[in-house]
Amino acid sequence: MITSAENKKIKNVIHLLEKSKARKEQDAFVSEGIKMFEEAPLSDILEVYVSEDYKGPDGRLKEVKHEIVEAGVFKKMADTLTPQGILCVLKKKHYDLDLLLQEKNGLYLVLETVQDPGNLGTIMRTAEGAGVTGVIMSSDTVDIYNPKTVRSTMGSIFRVPFIYTDDLDKTIRTLKTSGVTCYAAHLKGTKTCYEEDYRKPTAFFIGNEGNGLSEKIADLADSYIKIPMGGKLESLNAAVSAAVLMYEAKRQRL
Amino acid sequence: MITSAENKKIKNVIHLLEKSKARKEQDAFVSEGIKMFEEAPLSDILEVYVSEDYKGPDGRLKEVKHEIVEAGVFKKMADTLTPQGILCVLKKKHYDLDLLLQEKNGLYLVLETVQDPGNLGTIMRTAEGAGVTGVIMSSDTVDIYNPKTVRSTMGSIFRVPFIYTDDLDKTIRTLKTSGVTCYAAHLKGTKTCYEEDYRKPTAFFIGNEGNGLSEKIADLADSYIKIPMGGKLESLNAAVSAAVLMYEAKRQRL
Repeated sequence: MITSAENKKIKNVIHLLEKSKARKEQDAFVSEGIKMFEEAPLSDILEVYVSEDYKGPDGRLKEVKHEIVEAGVFKKMADTLTPQGILCVLKKKHYDLDLLLQEKNGLYLVLETVQDPGNLGTIMRTAEGAGVTGVIMSSDTVDIYNPKTVRSTMGSIFRVPFIYTDDLDKTIRTLKTSGVTCYAAHLKGTKTCYEEDYRKPTAFFIGNEGNGLSEKIADLADSYIKIPMGGKLESLNAAVSAAVLMYEAKRQRL
Repeated sequence: MITSAENKKIKNVIHLLEKSKARKEQDAFVSEGIKMFEEAPLSDILEVYVSEDYKGPDGRLKEVKHEIVEAGVFKKMADTLTPQGILCVLKKKHYDLDLLLQEKNGLYLVLETVQDPGNLGTIMRTAEGAGVTGVIMSSDTVDIYNPKTVRSTMGSIFRVPFIYTDDLDKTIRTLKTSGVTCYAAHLKGTKTCYEEDYRKPTAFFIGNEGNGLSEKIADLADSYIKIPMGGKLESLNAAVSAAVLMYEAKRQRL
């Protein structure tokens, strides 16, 4: 049993939880909780830590090497206020854009500079529900391996492919030459989001929470669409906008 | 200028921010930031506090009595990490269910035990966009006057009518006898949410983030509907579920 918060491995887990840089260097991240442990692909699991007072199901624990941690030390290591007593260190995911583009009638989400960790997690979760092929993000989008984002994906991080790109402009051009029609959610849209056909290969662009899409990226879209809005509202929450569009595509494709 | 955090008024603002009970007793709440100040109905404003270093627009400040607060004291009073230097104390809103039910083809949202302040704020914001007539909440739903919720409504709290009810069961029966068709978002739904007609008076029931709707409340619905979900997902985020349903009604009503 690990009994000291000074233990090298424990310190490294805290590092991975707190520092995007550490996650980058080690190509690894941390996920907490029972659900995340149960849904993680076995081949991605690098380390598992279990609190001495863990009371969750132990089926999977029998198959996986893990270390017991003294309860007080575990609490120090966990990012949540009421930890469930289990966390794992996992290999980061790596997806290939060309493979994602081979999907027949793919549905893609392009996120530019989305900043809120909870929004990104919710977007990933909704993307799984709506059957999105892949989520493409500008490199200044919030880190998907941020513990808050990982948690709010509710496991979708293991199942929805995603890619960060240093050159969003170029990646969008690749989408377009592959036959994907691109729609920018934009206030300047003259058509509503209900007037387009999303049954062919489709991508939706979603911008930053405060500023929306940059002009440069919005200009790459084949069409601007707007989500109809009543009242005095200027915009919807980014995760809600993404949900309305993804589910309109889902509806059309049913 | 108020220069002490011990000032009675300042202490009361902090009280109102932190304590649901204080908000109840005084029938008042606090909203922070420029946007919220600009959008608040003048007749609801009880007090306005402005930091000595406030640099926002001052158009409306000319019309409204306000007090200047020393910058350090203002920071102590604000709930946000980077306050915009302005906050107001407002009268709570009071709406009448019977009036809300007079709306022709009303669209209602019924929330049971929704717990996350950000989710409720996002739901209010989306409700404004989708043209919801009123949001009805069980009394154990999170307090809408919680500072985080107020903020995430983005001003919709001033414009979307809402009601807390101690007897959700009875309130739903009132909806039904008034001719509102009620739909429960539920995994047991055999129809998808796209197979019903929401152009007549309609209410959607949304349950708690972890546990969904209670059986008692779900049973009151005229129909269970489910949002189609791909992947291994068990549910969507509560604010996303509400958004998908409200916007499907909006789409049908366009």
